[in-house]
Formats: sequence, C-alpha cells, structure tokens
Amino acid sequence: MGYDKHDELCINTIRLLAVDATFKANSGHPGAPMGMAPISHVLWNKFMTFNPKNPEWVNRDRFVLSNGHGCMLQYALLHLFGFELSMEDIKNFRQVDSITPGHPESHDTPGIEVTTGPLGQGFANAVGLAVAQAHTAAIFNKPDFDLINNYTYCYFGDGCAMEGIASEAASAAGHLQLGNLICIYDDNHISIDGDTAVSFTEDVSKRFEAYGWHVQHVEKGDTDLEAMEEAIKKAREVKDKPSMIKLTTTIGFGSKLQGTGGVHGNPLKADDVKSVKEKFGFDPEQTFVVPQEVYDAYHKHAAEGAAAEEEWNKLFEKYGEKHPELHKDLKRRLTRDLPEGWQTKLPTYKPTDPAIASRKLSESVLEAIHEAVPELISGSADLTGSNNTRWKKAVDFQPPSLGLGDYSGRYMRYGVREHGMAGMMNGMATYGTVIPAGGTFLNFVSYAAGAVRLSSLAHQRVIYIATHDSIGLGEDGPTHQPIETLAHFRALPNMMVWRPADGNETSAAYYMALTSKQTPSIIALTRQNLPQLEGSTLQDAIKGGYVALEDKEAAVTLVSTGSEVSICLEAVKYLKDNNDIKARVVSMPCVEVFDAQDKEYRLSVIPDGIPAMSVEVMSTLGWEKYTHEQFGLNRFGASGPYKEVYKKFEFTPEGIAKRAVKTVDFYKDVKPLRSPINRAFTQLI
Amino acid sequence: MGYDKHDELCINTIRLLAVDATFKANSGHPGAPMGMAPISHVLWNKFMTFNPKNPEWVNRDRFVLSNGHGCMLQYALLHLFGFELSMEDIKNFRQVDSITPGHPESHDTPGIEVTTGPLGQGFANAVGLAVAQAHTAAIFNKPDFDLINNYTYCYFGDGCAMEGIASEAASAAGHLQLGNLICIYDDNHISIDGDTAVSFTEDVSKRFEAYGWHVQHVEKGDTDLEAMEEAIKKAREVKDKPSMIKLTTTIGFGSKLQGTGGVHGNPLKADDVKSVKEKFGFDPEQTFVVPQEVYDAYHKHAAEGAAAEEEWNKLFEKYGEKHPELHKDLKRRLTRDLPEGWQTKLPTYKPTDPAIASRKLSESVLEAIHEAVPELISGSADLTGSNNTRWKKAVDFQPPSLGLGDYSGRYMRYGVREHGMAGMMNGMATYGTVIPAGGTFLNFVSYAAGAVRLSSLAHQRVIYIATHDSIGLGEDGPTHQPIETLAHFRALPNMMVWRPADGNETSAAYYMALTSKQTPSIIALTRQNLPQLEGSTLQDAIKGGYVALEDKEAAVTLVSTGSEVSICLEAVKYLKDNNDIKARVVSMPCVEVFDAQDKEYRLSVIPDGIPAMSVEVMSTLGWEKYTHEQFGLNRFGASGPYKEVYKKFEFTPEGIAKRAVKTVDFYKDVKPLRSPINRAFTQLI
Repeated sequence: MGYDKHDELCINTIRLLAVDATFKANSGHPGAPMGMAPISHVLWNKFMTFNPKNPEWVNRDRFVLSNGHGCMLQYALLHLFGFELSMEDIKNFRQVDSITPGHPESHDTPGIEVTTGPLGQGFANAVGLAVAQAHTAAIFNKPDFDLINNYTYCYFGDGCAMEGIASEAASAAGHLQLGNLICIYDDNHISIDGDTAVSFTEDVSKRFEAYGWHVQHVEKGDTDLEAMEEAIKKAREVKDKPSMIKLTTTIGFGSKLQGTGGVHGNPLKADDVKSVKEKFGFDPEQTFVVPQEVYDAYHKHAAEGAAAEEEWNKLFEKYGEKHPELHKDLKRRLTRDLPEGWQTKLPTYKPTDPAIASRKLSESVLEAIHEAVPELISGSADLTGSNNTRWKKAVDFQPPSLGLGDYSGRYMRYGVREHGMAGMMNGMATYGTVIPAGGTFLNFVSYAAGAVRLSSLAHQRVIYIATHDSIGLGEDGPTHQPIETLAHFRALPNMMVWRPADGNETSAAYYMALTSKQTPSIIALTRQNLPQLEGSTLQDAIKGGYVALEDKEAAVTLVSTGSEVSICLEAVKYLKDNNDIKARVVSMPCVEVFDAQDKEYRLSVIPDGIPAMSVEVMSTLGWEKYTHEQFGLNRFGASGPYKEVYKKFEFTPEGIAKRAVKTVDFYKDVKPLRSPINRAFTQLI
Repeated sequence: MGYDKHDELCINTIRLLAVDATFKANSGHPGAPMGMAPISHVLWNKFMTFNPKNPEWVNRDRFVLSNGHGCMLQYALLHLFGFELSMEDIKNFRQVDSITPGHPESHDTPGIEVTTGPLGQGFANAVGLAVAQAHTAAIFNKPDFDLINNYTYCYFGDGCAMEGIASEAASAAGHLQLGNLICIYDDNHISIDGDTAVSFTEDVSKRFEAYGWHVQHVEKGDTDLEAMEEAIKKAREVKDKPSMIKLTTTIGFGSKLQGTGGVHGNPLKADDVKSVKEKFGFDPEQTFVVPQEVYDAYHKHAAEGAAAEEEWNKLFEKYGEKHPELHKDLKRRLTRDLPEGWQTKLPTYKPTDPAIASRKLSESVLEAIHEAVPELISGSADLTGSNNTRWKKAVDFQPPSLGLGDYSGRYMRYGVREHGMAGMMNGMATYGTVIPAGGTFLNFVSYAAGAVRLSSLAHQRVIYIATHDSIGLGEDGPTHQPIETLAHFRALPNMMVWRPADGNETSAAYYMALTSKQTPSIIALTRQNLPQLEGSTLQDAIKGGYVALEDKEAAVTLVSTGSEVSICLEAVKYLKDNNDIKARVVSMPCVEVFDAQDKEYRLSVIPDGIPAMSVEVMSTLGWEKYTHEQFGLNRFGASGPYKEVYKKFEFTPEGIAKRAVKTVDFYKDVKPLRSPINRAFTQLI
C-alpha cells in the first residue's frame, strides 16, 4: 500500500526496457510487458521471495510467464533484481546465442523457471509446480519446520485461456485444491487476430469458478496498484483452492496504439517510442535507461530474498539435526542423483521366465523400485488399469478433504487429460524434488505432443509410460493403433524413445530414463505377452541396441524392436529350415541411445558386408538410417484379435523370412556393401 | 410422450445386442450402450430424420458418438433402423475386416458420420458439422426453401468432457451461437479409473453456461423418457445457442456391475449376461435377439425418413426451377468435384518474378481461387495476419447478432484453439458441402496431432496451412521452430505433406490438396522470401518431386524442399567454381505424391550411379528413403534473425557444398551404386 511516483518510475522503467529491446531487435512483443509491468512491480516486490544470487533455492516462489511472448517483461525483471542477466543481454534480445531468446528458455537463462511461448504450456507447468510443491511440503514439512511453503505465480493471457491444455490443467488444479497456486489472467481483450470479440466471448471467470477456483477481478489493472496488492493478498489467504485473478489491462499501455492488436507482436514505431518515453517522463533520446533508484529498490528486495534464503538454510540445518534422514533425502533429491544402489532393485529375467506383456513388466519395475526411489511419482491419464502404472500400496495424490488420498501420495489421477498431464509433468520435474512418470496409450501421447516437445527442449526428466504400443493392442482398432508415433518422437531431439522387447529391456529402459537427468523418455509397451529373450541382458540393452542372436556366417541382419524381436528370432529358424539362409538378430530398444555409442560398437552390431533389414510393425520412416531394407506398416491397422491382425499384415516368421530372402538376393552384387552406420559426414549436434 | 412396454422392449433390445456382441467378441464396451439406450430410443425415433437407404442425403440429421468406445450402441441402432449393417456384421464386432470395428470408422461403415474413439474428437467434429450446416443453410436457403435445416446431435461422456479439444470446440461453439447443435452429456460418473470423483469434480454444466451454451439436466436418464423428450424438444427450440443436456445415467444399466467401472470396458461375465436377460424378460439362452415388433417400429421410422427425403427431393427440384445456379452448385458440391476450370485461376510464376514468402504465395492462391471455389472455407487459429489465410474481401463466419459477419461468411476465426480447429475442420469436411482450410504455425499443427491423424484415417479433404515452417522463422526461436514436425506427418498414412519451394510449387500444393477428395494436406510455408525457381512448373510440381536443375554429368544429386531448394541451386554454382564438381538438384515438395509416381519416373529423378544427398533444415529422419546422405538439423534451432540462424547451422551454399563433396568421395568405390528408389521388396499398402 502507499504507492507513489517511485513505483510509477519502476513500472515505466520495465515498460521502456521492453520497448527499447524490441525496437532494437526489430522483433518481439512489447504489448504484454507494457500492460503487465504494474502487476509485476507489485507481485515481485511485495510478495515474491527469491534470491537472484541462487536461482535454484528450493523454497523460492516460482514465477511462470505462460504468455511467454511477453518475455521482455521477464528479462527486464530478472535484470533489475540482479539475476545473471546483464543490460548487454537485454540489448542482445532475440539474437543468435544470446540468453534472451524470443521466448523464455529455462535451460539457457538463470531465473527462467520453465520454457514457455507455446500457449497454454506455462499454465500447465504452473499447476505441476504447485503439485510438486504440495507434495514436497507433505513429505518434508514437520512441526516447527515449515520448510516448503512457496507459492507458484503464473501469468496467462487470452491465448492461454483458449488453449485446451490450460483448460485441462485448470480443471485438474481445481480438483486438486492447490491453494499455493495463483494465476493472473491478463484480460487485455487482444490476441493476434485483434479484439478477442471475434472468437472468445465466453465468461472466463465463471469457467474457472466451475473448475473450483477462487476468482477475483481487478478492474483497473493498469493503475490500481492497491487493488492488485489486495487481490494477491486475498488469493494467498485462500488455502483450499487455486486462485485466479482476472486483471483487466491495456495492452501496450502508453503507446499510441495501446489497446490494439498493433502493439501485440510488433515493436513500436520510432515516433511512438519517443512519444511513450516523453509520456513517462523519460528522455526520448536515451535508450535502455534504468534510474539508479529503480536498481536500488529492486536490489533491496533481492537482498531481502537472499536473507530469507539464509534464514531458510539455518532452518534446514536445524531440520537436519531433528530429521537427519529426511534432510539427507531432500539434499540428495536436489542434486538429481538417485539413491545409491537403487538399481539393484530392477527386476531381471531368465529366458525360462514366463511370457509377460511389457506393460506388466513396467508395472513390476515400478513395484520393485518405488521404495528405493522415493521421488518417483507415477500416474495415468485415466488408464491406470491399462497402463499398469500404479504399485499396489500406492496412495493417491489428492486433497485430503476428499478422503481419497493426500498430498504425500505418489500416484496422480490426471483424468482424461493427456496434454494437461504432460504439461503438469514438465512443471513437476522442474520443481527439482520429484520425477514424474505418467501413462497413456502410445497413440495418445500424440495428444500431448506440444508438451512432450517441451520436455525435450527444456531438458526435463519426464517419463511417458506409453502402453498399447502397436496393432498388437488388437480389437480397439486403427483409431488406437499407433503407426506414425515412434517416428514422430524419434525425430524429436533430446528424446529417448524406448520399445523394449522383454523384461530385461524394460528394466534397462527405466534405468536409462531415471538416470538421464536432462532427457525425457517415452517407454512404448505392449498389451500382449512377450517371451523373455535368450540374448537379452540389462547391460546390453542400456546400449540402446545389441546383438540378440549372433551368427558369424549370417547373410542378413534383422534389426527389430519390442514385440517383433521374438518373431524375428523365430524367423531365423524358419530361414534356416526353409531357405538355407543364416540370419542374425539385433534388438534395438532405443535408437537414440544406440546412436550415442562409439562407432566401433555400432558397427559390431550392424556390420559391413551383409544387408540389414528392419522389422517393426509401424511406419518404416527412419529405419533407413540403420538398415538397407525395411519391413513395417505404412498404412493404418485393423480391428481384431491381435494375432489375426499380425497375420493379416504378415508379421509372422514366414512374412519376415520372405522379405529377408529378397533382401539377401537384392544386395548380392553390391561391393562394398557398407553398413548404414558408415556415413559420409556426421550430423550437426 | 406416452411411453410404454414397447419402448422398454426396444431399449432392452439395444442393450442386449451390445451385451451379446461384446460377449461374443470377448472385447468391447457394453456399459455406455446399456446406459444410453433409452435416450437413443427417444432421440432417434422422435427427433432424428434420416433415410437408412441413403445415408448420404445432405439434409439428414447428423449423429456423432463422441464416446466412440460405445459403438455397439451405434451399430445396434444402424442395424435396427435398416442401414446396411446386418446381424452378421454385429456378430463380427471387432473382427478383422468387419464393418464393425472397435471404434466407429466413417470410411468403412454406412451411417457412421465421423470416426470417433479418441476422446473429445467427436465433440469437435459435431461443432464442425454444425458450422457447415449453418453455413450451407446461409448460402442455399431461400424464402420458401428451407433446404438445409438439419440438427447435429452428439453424445459425449466424462472422458470427452475432460479433453482439451472438447473444451476448445465448446468455447468456439458458444461464441458461434450454433443453435442447431445439441450435445448430450452422458453423466455416468464412471471413467476407466473408476468413479470420476478421483479426478473430475468440476461443475460441467456451469462450465458450459460460461461458454454460452443452453444447459439442461435430466436427472433420471435411465428411465424418464418423457423428460428426455421434453429436454430435446426445448433444446431444439433454442435457436441462438448450442444446447447441452446433462443426462445422469447408470453405466451398464441392468448388469450386476451397473454403475461401476467394471462394466465400462469389459464384456459382462456369462452369468451376468444371463441375469440381465432375465431381468429384461429375454430368454437367457438366446443371443442376438430382435423381437419383430422392434424391427417393425424402427423400420417404420426409417420409412418416414425415406419419405422425408423424397419430400426434400421434390423441394430441391422446385428449388432448381427458381434458383438454377444455386441448385447446380449444391448438386456439384455433393459430388465433391470442383467447378470446371477453377484451376486456371491458380497463379503461375516466371523466374524473373520477385522473391516472395510462400505464406504470401499461399495468400495469393486463396485470393485467386476463392471465387472459383465457393466451397472453400479458410480460417486460422488466431494467426490470420501471420498465416495470410484471409482473402481481402472475406466475410467472417460469425453469428449475425455480433455484427462481425454472418453465417454465409467463409472465414473462420477459430481462436487460439489448434486442436479444436482441426477437429472442427474434420466435421466440416464431413458435412459434404465445404472444404475447410485452416492456418497455424507448422510447429503448432502438433497441438492438433490427435485430430490431424483422424483427418487421415477418415479420408477427410482438410487443408492445414502451416506457416513459419522452419528455423527460417527466425527470432521466435526454438519454441516455435519445427524440427520433428514434417517427419511426424510424413510417417502418417494418407497425409500429403507439402513444402513448396516457390510460387508454382505453392499453386501445385493447392491443386493437389483441393483435388484429392480422400486425402488431407499439410502445406508448410515460409515466413521468409523465396526466389521463383528457373526449373519449376505447376505440371512438374504436382508429381511431388522433379528435377529442378539437370546435369547429365553430375556427380551428385541434391534433393531438397522449400526454402532450401534455392540454396542448393546456389550450392551447385559453388561446387562447380570451387570443387570442380557438377551437381543436379531435385525439388521434392511432397514425398507422398512422389511415391505415387511410376518407378521409371522416380528413377529418372533420383537415378542410379551417383549418390544423392538431401538438404532440409530439420530432422533428417526419413530422407534416407530417397538419398544416400542427409544434411539436416537433428537438434533444436536458435533465436535470431533468420539469415544468422541459417548461417549458424551452415545452411549456406558453402555448407551444402562441403557435405556434397564428402558424399561424392564416400560413394566413389561402391558398385553398383543404386538409387534408393530401388528396393528389395515393396511395402504393404
């Protein structure tokens, strides 16, 4: 309370940094920063606790800019509060190799919590951050030790409000009663097509009430700092519901084009830049100006944050005396290392063990390791019984008032909300104390593609448990049978796509997924039973590809994944008996991990001199990289019992053998016949 | 009104067909059909007008089962009313090559309007059907000729209600005030995880009210047929809002497990089958029983539908006398043929024409053809100015009351709702009188992946205008720069992915997209300017791939798409000048269309004897199919001015030449060096 000229100066400083940076870059979005500078001044100074010198402090308040195109607002704030983001960085806005890219990227810029810009994602991330906070608090807070009590604040605009992912996450957050989540809706009535009246006339506040949120409205979002402060204060007091504050603002406040689409995604014109500086009492000839009193005020708040962290560190030290095990556990989690020896819990299998569906093998992994890896949070988008994602004694993560679990629970009921789930998992992984694993059918990971992409781009350790991975799901038919899905995600950088062939490979997939701190994984799992392979071991499988059946006299290498590996092994017998052809089999559960092995190893797996043929019951796209010929399914599947469906498409020992014979024949005359591992040049990485 | 035992018999007949079919298949979902048989009996008999002998009649009422897993309900109805779906077909439920697959597929089964099962899709399709209906009515209805006045009815369950795509479409439908859309929410409180209380506690009715829908609640959805009839009647009377009827039902009504998750996705046990038949007064020893009086009653309604169509045909004939042009136009549209000569409007370009961004070239196509192709409906997911999707004189498709357009308008303001847009476009295309084209950034077509997949599976002529197609978008950075996207959709069966290199290729893309009645297209377009190529013609480009620069003495073929083709042409000069290597260039705007050419042609484009290298500034995945070596970007991009970004990743004449030299060198010793067009065997199609 008691706002004055000083506050106005701070606010206008933020606005003009956004104006200058976008003008200099001749690119970017000045409108949202100019409109949301006032609320930011209030929120960051009056409510948010953070230490710019240690942006990783676990109990800091989290800030998410879901309308990420307004990132100059965030960069300006980070700079003013003293994060490692210099004025030079701001001047390099949107330039190659700067830490101030066109949309905020958490991996590159200290103080950016999550990577946003693709609309709606940040909102879902914020829900995930709040989930992780509530869970971490439930696990670690003890009487006299309110260790984890940060808030998550999120800005979102009309674009985010329209996106389905935000609707899904908002519905989930309401159900979960996440009291520490406060989302501020920049109600500026402008999106790229102009006035939102052309497409978006719903009552957003009423919708959020329907989700179970606490909703307020600040009408004068450009000027009424008292009302903003009051609303945030009230929101913090509501402990049993997430809060939404509708803040009616003027986009591009101060510009000649304020309140119009003209100021959304384009820098101001030169005369407008001058005019707005004059209007705000700044020298129109100067650029990138920060009055010392603004730095002073903001650095003062930063120092308070540093002091708060110091207090917290003392509290945490005391906590260590009283709760040494928990103290150790939290410290370890923050390093992202797993508990020592956890991997000894991973199940291993002998060839004599029974055939089991890999979705069940995945369940066995979760059952076996969940105690050893307490940060693992499983869940499913309403397919628990099909994804087999829940260990027997799991407690649901639920608001205690519902009587269905509590916040210490490690099983998420995401509902039929795949995209929301993925966005939430990205937020959860970001928090730093949990590893989220979430299930759906492989085909419906595609619903979440927007968020899965950000798992990769933002280097999130997120695990997608993707069951029903092929036509092998049978009767549900083509609407549910993935064809393009593995190719899609194999083309996505920094993503491990696993398709294990048996129990040892399933354990290997989890081993790599859990120990790769910077890379998400999709683990594709069958509905149908798979035999335990002769040649598989965890040690081999974690190389991504290995020889499952060697034959030094082989005329062909069959390269396969998942449920087709065992059929290839049968095909080897068939080829020998019927065609007098010797074949060897490579199991390739994860091409990305295989690619990371040294060339000598890779060539030992797919050697020169004989042709290789891939066998995978979906799109062949991409297999040309590893094999000379490809047997796959470049059409949609069929509804029927799975064995019938496999037969229809000739994924049988005979069908494979037929094509292997043609492959051997076709390459007979080629000299030298090089392994596809040999390339003329290496790709950029 | 006046329901009696007869109605109960009809309803129980439907229920038991679902019970028997799922039991026989040992697979499927009996619960929803058993719960929704009553409303179906009322809706289909009392309100829906359709002719089973002509399921294509344009003014039929449309029915969409968004909870498509309940398809035995729909199959039972189609059978009972006399569509071409026999009892034998019902007995073949979920068997290979049946017309009764595990989820309804419009392409295979007469009477199935849209392909559903992936949750939320049908709901969005229904919104699209209602859009197309309103538009077609606005264009063709005249005084005394209320030609097009059908309703669209849609069932959706809790799963659909949770999906973001349905939220997006519901918000759009509310904005658009689609009075002829009536959606019935199967409020049975059960999803796969059991009671929806575990994840879905929002107030769905209030949410729909917030969207601007008319909302009612029928509490006794199992029994109160009068209330159902009354609610549907009221919904039909509301002309300025879409209607949602919340129908509280008991899933698996009649089963021992009714009201539980146990009856959702599994057939009833044998004793339960018997018990429910006894309860309903049927012989427990008999299966697939339809009492004659049920057939009689349903066939009577079918005959009324046939009579209604006959009436309509007479009306349409009279309409032809009074409005011959419109009559001709509607008749033509229903054949899905385009107007004769429309293609002469497609712009063509000479090499001397200026460099233009392909998103602008796309705009020129729309400007040039929109009058000649009146069924084309353009639109954008709130990126109109960036996607360049709107011709100058376009009128918005809007409810007249808003004063922003009217239902005759041919420009859709979809809002920031990519998935909803795609689902709506699938519905619009299905209606039969319009061709939808919708824009977003290529990167955000991924948000719509679930619906894009169904465009392909359901053979919809839908056009995705996907601008900002690469790192060439520049400053927006990695969050917006597609890497995996083209590989993803090239792996999707029955999808044309176009990436035109200049004006003639852009026209070719539209030519093929508009004339391919059974195949959707994604047209990937640049933000940056592209020169008009020497070697390009529309006639060449519609082959999907062609020689843009021939050289019979070439040592290497460069195969490229879109913005990289002109850089390859520069690289040819560079190679000649600096390396004394001759090269030829292939432009490959659409691999799927190229694949459809005869082998001789394809080999003439990518010949034997010299190596081929692909150049495309995104994931190389899949290019191995056409080339020996690949130059691409298997990592995320960078934020900066696009020329800087291209330089950073070496997509320059020098960068290409460097790799071409290595390619030539690497393959020198291989004999014979076959074109990748040659394969050992052909793929299954």
